[in-house]
Amino acid sequence: MNVQSDFEGLEVGFDVPALPGMDETDIQTPCLVLDLDALERNITKMGDYAKAHGMRHRVHGKMHKSVDVAKLQEKLGGSVGVCCQKVSEAEVFARGGIKDVLVSNQVTDPIKIDRLARMPKLGARVLCCVDDPENVAALSAAAVKHGTQIEALVEIDCGAGRCGVTTTQQVVDIAKLLDAAEGLKFAGIQAYQGAMQHMDSYEDRKAKLDVAVAQVADAVTALKAQGLECDIVGGGGTGSYYFESASGVYNELQCGSYAFMDADYGRILDKDGKRIDQGEWENALFILTTVMSHAKADKAIVDAGLKAQSLDSGLPTIYGRDDVEYVKCSDEHGVVADPDGVLKVNDKLKLVPGHCDPTCNVHDWYVGVRNGKVETLWPVSARGKAY
Amino acid sequence: MNVQSDFEGLEVGFDVPALPGMDETDIQTPCLVLDLDALERNITKMGDYAKAHGMRHRVHGKMHKSVDVAKLQEKLGGSVGVCCQKVSEAEVFARGGIKDVLVSNQVTDPIKIDRLARMPKLGARVLCCVDDPENVAALSAAAVKHGTQIEALVEIDCGAGRCGVTTTQQVVDIAKLLDAAEGLKFAGIQAYQGAMQHMDSYEDRKAKLDVAVAQVADAVTALKAQGLECDIVGGGGTGSYYFESASGVYNELQCGSYAFMDADYGRILDKDGKRIDQGEWENALFILTTVMSHAKADKAIVDAGLKAQSLDSGLPTIYGRDDVEYVKCSDEHGVVADPDGVLKVNDKLKLVPGHCDPTCNVHDWYVGVRNGKVETLWPVSARGKAY
Repeated sequence: MNVQSDFEGLEVGFDVPALPGMDETDIQTPCLVLDLDALERNITKMGDYAKAHGMRHRVHGKMHKSVDVAKLQEKLGGSVGVCCQKVSEAEVFARGGIKDVLVSNQVTDPIKIDRLARMPKLGARVLCCVDDPENVAALSAAAVKHGTQIEALVEIDCGAGRCGVTTTQQVVDIAKLLDAAEGLKFAGIQAYQGAMQHMDSYEDRKAKLDVAVAQVADAVTALKAQGLECDIVGGGGTGSYYFESASGVYNELQCGSYAFMDADYGRILDKDGKRIDQGEWENALFILTTVMSHAKADKAIVDAGLKAQSLDSGLPTIYGRDDVEYVKCSDEHGVVADPDGVLKVNDKLKLVPGHCDPTCNVHDWYVGVRNGKVETLWPVSARGKAY
Repeated sequence: MNVQSDFEGLEVGFDVPALPGMDETDIQTPCLVLDLDALERNITKMGDYAKAHGMRHRVHGKMHKSVDVAKLQEKLGGSVGVCCQKVSEAEVFARGGIKDVLVSNQVTDPIKIDRLARMPKLGARVLCCVDDPENVAALSAAAVKHGTQIEALVEIDCGAGRCGVTTTQQVVDIAKLLDAAEGLKFAGIQAYQGAMQHMDSYEDRKAKLDVAVAQVADAVTALKAQGLECDIVGGGGTGSYYFESASGVYNELQCGSYAFMDADYGRILDKDGKRIDQGEWENALFILTTVMSHAKADKAIVDAGLKAQSLDSGLPTIYGRDDVEYVKCSDEHGVVADPDGVLKVNDKLKLVPGHCDPTCNVHDWYVGVRNGKVETLWPVSARGKAY
């Protein structure tokens, strides 16, 4: 959405936090603001990296939930499609024109399976993950019923401790079932090591990924011995993509947070011991917030609380400021320690959220800003698509 | 929204998690489910309590953000109106037909003040809070511009540590300014002790409220000495309403969570040392979730993660079960310890969220259930109205 007419009838401060053309200073808060220059640089940089390392990049759409951002990732980053975690989310991307959509999760509910099986009719290649032999028959029946094809990856739990099988034998058994099932196509392996992405130390992350790579390589070899080739061996996040790229066994990255960055990811260290938000990636996503009370001399109260962000990975930081600190959060209030009383009512601050994914999921809009002006407004297209 | 035709064209599993008339077992997850019987009993009970104690009840709409629930609170609980925390939220309630709406927060941004001043034209009495003498002129100018009246409460910080003045002299000074300002009406005092609501011990909560009551009584007396009567002395929550009701100085309660309950409030103890979710209030709100993977024998993976709830007040509990436990949460996954392997893929569980307010704020719909059937679907009308 970039055209002024798309916003006709929308009221600033009720329907939308801003409109294109407005000064940045007039944006209604709290809301999500994207620094478009930083965003474009992040996307281009990861795209160039993947290309240089012979990797496909299937960007993780569950982070931003935005068709517009996914299309920017295609255009500037050469991404081959998206992955996401829910069927309803996948439908948003497929309806929005993304042609290759992986639900990097299990789809087991009968209504969800039916929706997944219909999705290729929207013009997209559709994939999902499987970790249970009993799931295969249900997926197959739905694809046959709708005359479509669902491609499936066997999910390996390589350390995340969630979904996924743990032995090569299980991988081979499920892959054979998929290969034999009408309406399905065995397409490879999903192996995302989610638990290590946020470990501070590069060496600690590498040690975890080495284990995962060995596990995945063993499965790929065993599958090959059975005549089953992996079109996709997918995984990798913002804290690990260089390990998967160097593994010789993964061929698809699934990075999400690199595009926006957040405070929790920002703290992890690269191989030289430098924070990744100090050179590797730029903060492109902010929660813009306004001081609404300063009745106590050393404390400013801002309008971004729990309903403007998720605290699961800690409090937000205040971008570009070390004189004030966001110290406490309740439903609609944030307490900012202001020991020198430098803030005034109606001053604005840019918060870097603790965790970008669930923070984006509580907002309806991204306000895209460049050179002090609102350039665009993008809906968080799949916000709330949790089913 | 109760009429079948309201839902025409909405797709289950994409637009909505369910439709009226469906069996409870077919609801698409994760989503919010309301036990309508429990909800109605909670609302009736609090209404009866307020009436018996000569208190008005201005229900806190920021908890549920639902016009339908607010209207049920009027009908069954005799509530006099709503309070909420944001101007955009207040607009939703006023547009929805609630006739008395308090923004129990500061309104300082020029665009927000302008919207607030226009709101009485929607047919509602409109109030807000003030803790800053400099705010008065801006509110007054906007009310004069639009030919409306804004009523204002002086906010006292009686322990929450957020907005609000701390001395009686400040209360009197701001009240005089409000009383003198064209377009404004001084309407009383806002004094919500938010910080004590979740303290487990009844006696600890009482000690905190005693301090607040003394502070508020002092201000009311000083105002009276200046000829300024308080129409409203408002505050009180689910952990304290009996203290305000017995105070002799408060006349309006502002309870929210009692209607739905949550795990964090449920743990606090009444005067007999009994958890308040074991008799005082019933759990009426649940996050319905489905097991989507059980690849590990002792662990079920469910589909309600961080994007279906807020973890700020801890993990959810599993309603009515002590054989399984929700032990870990990531963006789209919940890990449920299942030591005896009693769960199967596609089993459903009812989670009691840690904190109801920010959990409701990530969902679009309440699915109202009675006797195993979906009876109604209510939009979370003010979801995302954070401005």
